[in-house]
Amino acid sequence: MPEISDQDYSQLRLQQVNEALGSGMFVHVRKLLQDLPAYDLALLLESSPTKTRTVLWQLIDTDHHGDVLEELNEEVRKGILKTMRPEKLAEVTEGMDVDDIAEVLRALPDSVYRQVLNSMDSQDRGRVEQALSYEEDTAGGIMNTDTITIRADVTVDVVLRYLRLKGELPESTDSFYVVDRQDHFIGSVALAKLVTAKPEVGISALIDEDIQAVNAKLPETEVAQLFERYDWFSAPVVDDDGRLLGRITVDDVVDIIREEAEHSMMSMAGLDDEADTFAPILKSTQQRSVWLGVNLITAIFAVVVSNMFEDILSQLTILAILNTLVPSMGGVAGNQTLTLVIRGLALGHVGDSNAKALLYKELAVGFLNGVIWALLIAAVVGVWKQDMTLAGIIAFAMLMNMTAAGIAGVTIPLMLKRMKIDPALAGSVILTTVTDVVGIFAFLGTATLLIGY
Amino acid sequence: MPEISDQDYSQLRLQQVNEALGSGMFVHVRKLLQDLPAYDLALLLESSPTKTRTVLWQLIDTDHHGDVLEELNEEVRKGILKTMRPEKLAEVTEGMDVDDIAEVLRALPDSVYRQVLNSMDSQDRGRVEQALSYEEDTAGGIMNTDTITIRADVTVDVVLRYLRLKGELPESTDSFYVVDRQDHFIGSVALAKLVTAKPEVGISALIDEDIQAVNAKLPETEVAQLFERYDWFSAPVVDDDGRLLGRITVDDVVDIIREEAEHSMMSMAGLDDEADTFAPILKSTQQRSVWLGVNLITAIFAVVVSNMFEDILSQLTILAILNTLVPSMGGVAGNQTLTLVIRGLALGHVGDSNAKALLYKELAVGFLNGVIWALLIAAVVGVWKQDMTLAGIIAFAMLMNMTAAGIAGVTIPLMLKRMKIDPALAGSVILTTVTDVVGIFAFLGTATLLIGY
Repeated sequence: MPEISDQDYSQLRLQQVNEALGSGMFVHVRKLLQDLPAYDLALLLESSPTKTRTVLWQLIDTDHHGDVLEELNEEVRKGILKTMRPEKLAEVTEGMDVDDIAEVLRALPDSVYRQVLNSMDSQDRGRVEQALSYEEDTAGGIMNTDTITIRADVTVDVVLRYLRLKGELPESTDSFYVVDRQDHFIGSVALAKLVTAKPEVGISALIDEDIQAVNAKLPETEVAQLFERYDWFSAPVVDDDGRLLGRITVDDVVDIIREEAEHSMMSMAGLDDEADTFAPILKSTQQRSVWLGVNLITAIFAVVVSNMFEDILSQLTILAILNTLVPSMGGVAGNQTLTLVIRGLALGHVGDSNAKALLYKELAVGFLNGVIWALLIAAVVGVWKQDMTLAGIIAFAMLMNMTAAGIAGVTIPLMLKRMKIDPALAGSVILTTVTDVVGIFAFLGTATLLIGY
Repeated sequence: MPEISDQDYSQLRLQQVNEALGSGMFVHVRKLLQDLPAYDLALLLESSPTKTRTVLWQLIDTDHHGDVLEELNEEVRKGILKTMRPEKLAEVTEGMDVDDIAEVLRALPDSVYRQVLNSMDSQDRGRVEQALSYEEDTAGGIMNTDTITIRADVTVDVVLRYLRLKGELPESTDSFYVVDRQDHFIGSVALAKLVTAKPEVGISALIDEDIQAVNAKLPETEVAQLFERYDWFSAPVVDDDGRLLGRITVDDVVDIIREEAEHSMMSMAGLDDEADTFAPILKSTQQRSVWLGVNLITAIFAVVVSNMFEDILSQLTILAILNTLVPSMGGVAGNQTLTLVIRGLALGHVGDSNAKALLYKELAVGFLNGVIWALLIAAVVGVWKQDMTLAGIIAFAMLMNMTAAGIAGVTIPLMLKRMKIDPALAGSVILTTVTDVVGIFAFLGTATLLIGY
C-alpha cells in the first residue's frame, strides 16, 4: 500500500544524486534520475550550482525534458533553454501543455522562437500561437485548450455514451462545458452531477449556475483570487464575445498563489521573486547592486542629516554614541506596520474605505509603544549616565519617532499603491529614510535646543 | 452569461456596505449582506475595525454564520466566537465541514467547547471528536470524512448504478476510494476514468497507481508539498494501519500554501501570520512589544560597542557622523542573502548537500559588492572631506562588513534551522546584530589604530 511517512525522502534522494555526481559516477546518476518525478528533477536543478546544472540536464532522460521544463523556476529555465538547440527544443515541447510551451517560447530569442514554431505541425502551431496572443500573466496565458464541450439539448445518456466512445478524458477533467453552435459558453456541468443524474435527464438541467466564465484578459492574480473565493477546481475561459477558449485548472493556480505570496517577501528585500538561489556570482552581484545603490543614497541622506548637527556631536560624544538607537527602533516599528499593510493590500483587506481607521489604529499603537520604550530607554540612560536631561531628550525622540513610524507605515504603502509603484519593493527604503531622518532630527535637534552651547 | 471583468467589484460592494453602515441604514446593510458570498462576508469582517465587526456579525443572516466562520482568519474568528452563546454556536456549526467545526472548537474555552459538543447529535459528535483527536496542523486535522468508498471486485456498471441511486455526491468529489472489508485503502479511481470505461470492466483495473495515501499524522505543510508536487485535486487520508479515514481536497491546501508563504514575510517583521489587521489597539501594542523589546536589546548592544570607541569619537566628530553608513549597508546586503536563503529553505532548495556551495557563492557576491561600494564610498568621502586616510578606513570597513554580511546571511538561517528555531522569525535580529557589530568594529577600530592619538 503506498503511503508517505518520511518527510526527508526527496531531500535524501537529491543528496544521493549529488554524491554520485561528485564521484563522477555518471551512469549511476543517470539511473537515479530516471526514477525521479519531474517535480523532483526540477527541484534538483534549482538546488544545484549553475555548472552542475548543465551536467545534470544532459544526464536527464530526453523524454522527461519537457515535463521538467514545465516545473522549473523562470530564471533557471531561461539558463537551461540557452544551452539547447532549436530542433531539440521543438522535439522536447511535443508532449507539453500548450500554456507551458507558450511560456517556454516567450523566454527564447526571436530567431530561435520562430525556428521552434516552424518545426511544429500546423495544428500544434495554431494552438501555441493562440496562447501566445495573450499576455503572459493573464487567464489566456495560463489556460489549456483541451476542454470537452457538450450541447445543452442532449441527454445524460448521450453524453455518457460519447465519453465511453472517447475512451479517455484530458488530465484533471472535473467538468464539461455547455456551448451553443457558435461556441458561446452557456454553462458548466460537473462530472459528479453527470454520473448521479438519471440517463434521460437533459444536460441543460444539470448546469451549475455558480461557475462563472473568466475573461481571457483577466490578470492571473485575479484568476487566483476567484479560485480561492469560490473553491473552484477548474474554470472556463472565454473571449470578449463569450466564446469558449479553454480552461484553467487549480494546479496552475496553486503556483500563482505561491509566487504572489513570495513576491512580497522577496520584493521587500529588493529581490525578484523568480530569483535563482544558485545564480552565477556576477549575475547575483549585478542584480543586488541596484538595491544596494538605492540604500546607499538613503544611508548618505541620514549622514547628511547627522552632519547638520556636527556642533552638538563634537561637544557631547554620548550623543554620537546614542544616535543610532532612536532611528533603529523607529525603523523596526515602522517596518512592522508596513508589513501588515502590504499583506492587507495583497489580501484586499485595506482600501479607501478603511484606510483612515487603520491609520488611526497604527498611530495609536505607535504612540503607545513609543511611551513604553521611551520610559524604558529613559530609565536605562538615566541610570547609566546619571543625566536626567539626556534621558528626557532620548525619551522624547523615541516617542516622536515611534509615532511617526506608525503614520509612515500606513501612509507610504497606500501612497505608493496610488502611484502604481509596488509598495513591497519601494516601501521599506522610503520608510527607513523617514524613520532615520525623524529620529535624528528629534534626538539631535532637541539636544541642540536644550543642552547646546 | 456570467462573466467577470471588474476587479474592483467586491471592493466596491464592501464600500457600499460601509457607507450604509456609517449612516445607520441597518435594514439596507442586512439586505446587501444577504447577497454576498461567504468569502466576501469574511473579507468584510476582516477589513473592519473590531467595533464594526460586532455590528456586522449581527446583521449577517444566521444561516450564513457557519460558512463565514469557515472562511475567517483565525484571530478574527476567535474574536467573534467570544461573543457567541454556546447554543447559538452548536446551531451554527450544523452545516459546516467536520474539519472546520474542529477548528472552531479548538479556539473555544474548555467549558464552552464541551457544551457545544454535547448539543450535537451523536453521529456528528463522533465525527468531530475524531477530527479533534488529530493535531491541528496535520492531515487528520484538515481532512473531511465524506468519502465515497467502493470495492475492487465490482464492475463499473454496478458503481454507476449505485451513484445514480445515491443521487448526490459530496462537494468536489473527483475520485472514489477502493477499500477492502476492513476499510484498508487499496487505491483511488478517478471519476473521469469511471465514465470513460466500459460498463463490464472491473474497478480493480481502473485504480490510479499514482495516487498515494497520506498518513493522518503528516504535517499539513508536507501535505501541501505533495499536492504541489503531484498536481493532486484530492488525496485519501489513512491511519497507521492503512485504514481510510477521509480525504483532503485542494481548496484546503490552497489556504495552507498561502498561509505558509505569508508566514515567512510576517515572521521577518516579528508578526504572526494570522495577525488581525484591525486588531484592537491594546492587543496590537502588546503583540508588537515583544519584538520591539528584542530589537531594543540589539540596538543597545550596538550602542555599547560604539561606546568602546568613545575616545576616537570624541576626537573626530566626522567618525560619529559616518558611523551609521557601514552597518546600514551591511544590514541591507545581509538581509538580501537571508531572505534568499529563507525562501530556499521553504522551497527545499537549500540543504546540507549544497550549503557549502551557497556559502561560497554568497561570500563571493558579498565581497564583490563590498569592492564596488567601498570604492564608491571612498570616492564620496575623499572628495567631501579631502581625507584619503578616512576614505581608506571607511572603504576597508565596508568591504569587511559586506563580506561578513554574505557569510552571516547564509550561516545564521542554517544554524537556526538546525536548532529548530524559525529562521524567518529570529534571523533578521541576529543578522542585524552581526552586521552592526562587525561594521562598527571595522570602522571605529581601524580608525583608532590608524588615526587615534
